[in-house]
Amino acid sequence: MKITKKRLAHIVFESNDKASKLFDVVLLFMIFGSIFVAILDSVASLREDYGEAFLILEWLFTILFTIEYLLRVWLSRKATGYIFSFFGMVDLLAILPTYLSFFVLNSQLFTVVRALRLLRVIRILKLGRYVAEAEYLTKSLKSSSHKIMIFIGFVITIVLIMGTFMFIIEGPEHGFTSIPVGMYWAIVTLTTVGFGDIYPVTPLGQLVSSLIMLLGYAIIAVPTGIVSSEMASQKRKDELLLGDKICPKCRYTPLLQTDNYCKNCGEKLF
Amino acid sequence: MKITKKRLAHIVFESNDKASKLFDVVLLFMIFGSIFVAILDSVASLREDYGEAFLILEWLFTILFTIEYLLRVWLSRKATGYIFSFFGMVDLLAILPTYLSFFVLNSQLFTVVRALRLLRVIRILKLGRYVAEAEYLTKSLKSSSHKIMIFIGFVITIVLIMGTFMFIIEGPEHGFTSIPVGMYWAIVTLTTVGFGDIYPVTPLGQLVSSLIMLLGYAIIAVPTGIVSSEMASQKRKDELLLGDKICPKCRYTPLLQTDNYCKNCGEKLF
Amino acid sequence: MKITKKRLAHIVFESNDKASKLFDVVLLFMIFGSIFVAILDSVASLREDYGEAFLILEWLFTILFTIEYLLRVWLSRKATGYIFSFFGMVDLLAILPTYLSFFVLNSQLFTVVRALRLLRVIRILKLGRYVAEAEYLTKSLKSSSHKIMIFIGFVITIVLIMGTFMFIIEGPEHGFTSIPVGMYWAIVTLTTVGFGDIYPVTPLGQLVSSLIMLLGYAIIAVPTGIVSSEMASQKRKDELLLGDKICPKCRYTPLLQTDNYCKNCGEKLF
Amino acid sequence: MKITKKRLAHIVFESNDKASKLFDVVLLFMIFGSIFVAILDSVASLREDYGEAFLILEWLFTILFTIEYLLRVWLSRKATGYIFSFFGMVDLLAILPTYLSFFVLNSQLFTVVRALRLLRVIRILKLGRYVAEAEYLTKSLKSSSHKIMIFIGFVITIVLIMGTFMFIIEGPEHGFTSIPVGMYWAIVTLTTVGFGDIYPVTPLGQLVSSLIMLLGYAIIAVPTGIVSSEMASQKRKDELLLGDKICPKCRYTPLLQTDNYCKNCGEKLF
Repeated sequence: MKITKKRLAHIVFESNDKASKLFDVVLLFMIFGSIFVAILDSVASLREDYGEAFLILEWLFTILFTIEYLLRVWLSRKATGYIFSFFGMVDLLAILPTYLSFFVLNSQLFTVVRALRLLRVIRILKLGRYVAEAEYLTKSLKSSSHKIMIFIGFVITIVLIMGTFMFIIEGPEHGFTSIPVGMYWAIVTLTTVGFGDIYPVTPLGQLVSSLIMLLGYAIIAVPTGIVSSEMASQKRKDELLLGDKICPKCRYTPLLQTDNYCKNCGEKLF
Repeated sequence: MKITKKRLAHIVFESNDKASKLFDVVLLFMIFGSIFVAILDSVASLREDYGEAFLILEWLFTILFTIEYLLRVWLSRKATGYIFSFFGMVDLLAILPTYLSFFVLNSQLFTVVRALRLLRVIRILKLGRYVAEAEYLTKSLKSSSHKIMIFIGFVITIVLIMGTFMFIIEGPEHGFTSIPVGMYWAIVTLTTVGFGDIYPVTPLGQLVSSLIMLLGYAIIAVPTGIVSSEMASQKRKDELLLGDKICPKCRYTPLLQTDNYCKNCGEKLF
Repeated sequence: MKITKKRLAHIVFESNDKASKLFDVVLLFMIFGSIFVAILDSVASLREDYGEAFLILEWLFTILFTIEYLLRVWLSRKATGYIFSFFGMVDLLAILPTYLSFFVLNSQLFTVVRALRLLRVIRILKLGRYVAEAEYLTKSLKSSSHKIMIFIGFVITIVLIMGTFMFIIEGPEHGFTSIPVGMYWAIVTLTTVGFGDIYPVTPLGQLVSSLIMLLGYAIIAVPTGIVSSEMASQKRKDELLLGDKICPKCRYTPLLQTDNYCKNCGEKLF
Repeated sequence: MKITKKRLAHIVFESNDKASKLFDVVLLFMIFGSIFVAILDSVASLREDYGEAFLILEWLFTILFTIEYLLRVWLSRKATGYIFSFFGMVDLLAILPTYLSFFVLNSQLFTVVRALRLLRVIRILKLGRYVAEAEYLTKSLKSSSHKIMIFIGFVITIVLIMGTFMFIIEGPEHGFTSIPVGMYWAIVTLTTVGFGDIYPVTPLGQLVSSLIMLLGYAIIAVPTGIVSSEMASQKRKDELLLGDKICPKCRYTPLLQTDNYCKNCGEKLF
């Protein structure tokens, strides 16, 4: 069996038969493998012992990803369309840093870009049954994004005012060296993270912090409430198909997709 | 084109044409600019180098905000109405501290009042499509405010009792120097912030803290539950109500999509 | 006007006229006052300066509360009924510690009992419009108490297993001196408090902790979900009066209390 | 009265009469007792004083659990069916470590396996009225497991990218010694635990952390929203379904209180 260009494009871009699914799985392993090597390479003790092996693997992955990139450019109907698409940029960013490391010394910055390789996983995740669920999630988040933006604006206002207050009350001698540091502390406290690198020492500072914490405890309810009610509403619509199907006889609205007869007037529906 | 007082008032108070929108945008930049200068001024190293430039900018912003304030007083239909309104007070508070700094030496206190300028941002936020969303949020919070007040009363009771217990169990030698400090610790723990500046050392103290933490974990559900159910109820009402459907006979507004007869006067709807 | 025993009982136990409301307000001030004195008395520097004044105030409050207690015993229809009721015990506990301090040296233990006085505040809170809301809250909590108990059993199982794991992995040299300490740490971590007094140092310990934290992050949703859905259900019932009122003609169930006509068949309801 | 094998099997496996309930209670006490001994044994000071007593008790419990295990194997209809069931494995794991401690020196590893004994408690918990509630919980979690898996994948991506960023920004001199440590820190921060063993020191690091914290604060809403809406939907179904109402014609079970006609076959219901 001769592999035509069309067949190859199907293997690379689709995922509905054996060969194309195998391609996706191999790619998935390569992505996780290259990230795993980058992570291990960052551990000083491992780098000392296996630094050379990591470098060889890094180059192996880069070459394979380069072949994949060139394949995609060659096989896509419109090369520029692929190159300037989101995944085109991600694929390019995944191979560039290794080549650039010839010219630049700071190789750590490239570790970040290599971490971006993980984004390529999304392409694989798109397959199968997860799509619907992901859409459900993003739809809920999108339809409540305005409320969340107002909420974040409200939080930032609190953070600015509280950070300034704590800077004035506690002062540089207790770690609150500037308003930005005070705001950093306010975020650490309001989000209930509480590292403990900076904390109030004076009684007044402790009183104000207590108020911030109780406030944070109260407002943690707001984004949860927003997302919950949005999701519940989404779910209710899915369940009831509200407004989608009305009994033609009695005009009683909420009919389920599984109903054969109107449950109000007994009209036959199909 | 001569600018009349009426035209000027329109530019300052409305935001539905080019000139008035430009005024809003300029004001927005000034607000963020003045806050940014105040924040940078609090960083010791920046103050040393650019202290003089910050002082000049601070005076520039203050003079511009003073002009805006006087404009608003002059242009509003009832001057006293504006002066004693919420935003009138905010506008005054935004310019006062700089003038007061002539007479008072401790200039740090004014940094707080300068932070209040951020509140002026709300005036701009009021514009556009965010209004409905903001009302939705405050309505949900308002209608559940009684439950939240009871809940906070309940939390304060726990904090008082637990703070006293820990003060007795751990004592001043482990950082619990008084009941207020114990209460501060109880709030830090109950809200799951957990700075770690004070923590239990004795086994009994660790046992009691564990109970407080599990309690805090359980009651974190209560405010979230309150706000969520309130918002879901609000949302359900919005979905089921058809704002454009009014009973043609009694003009009783909120009709459900499923109603066949007006539930107030019995008028047949279809 | 002569004050009869019946009139006095009305003043003490009810709160629907001027005199009885005044009695409640005076009692409320006394409760907060006595708690405030107990809190201030625990601050070492204040105790040194005002210790004597605090002692006199403490005795004043104790004598007044004793008079109130004797009044309630005398005025209640069945003295033993009051003495052994919840509030009867609270009232007794509020005066006992001061008298007992004559005989016992360790005066710190009594600070706890003095904190119990705050519970007396509930009696006052019972008045007015807050009752319905409090009932709503306790009803939601009560009807989901079984689920919460199972959930707590589940959490304790995780805490025991994880605490034992960390004790073995990290060992006494990193602060995990015993299984109870490991369990204390697991609770601190699972509830997202995170004091930082004990924390994992070995890579394996950090990996296991990461799993615990993600688990804690996931299961924080469960109690919130339980309470939220319970409250939403409660709310829905209140709104719809589900099953309470059915249209006698068409048997269409969910009717609102404000409906005059059945919204399904138009039957006149009143 | 002679105890037959059948009667014994009833006592061991059922719990609906006096003898079998007694067996369950004795077993429950033994489980908690053995766990309690294992916990106390881990406290160094107690081990020194009572180490021998703990060892004797440990052997006593092990022998009793061995008898119980052999009884269950002998009494179950299909021995292999019991041995390879979940509870069969748990029962075996509960006795193995003590016997193995003869051959292995490191006795700490067995403490973990001993902790698994708590799992046997579930067998007792299965009895009685809690079953329905537990099913309700697991059903809610199961039906939202896909959404939760996507969510966790999303969280891990953030953790990897943020951990790498912080490793580069802060570097080993501020505690971020490798990418895995950076990821551990990102999880500690994103879940709002915040031990404070590692924390950002540079201004840029504090800015990035602030973004992570606000992100963590926002996405804490997502799993809560998922579980809440799932539970609310479950609850709504339970409320609307009348388990005792079946269409008399087609025997299609789930009928709503508001149905006039069977929605499957059109049978008139009233």
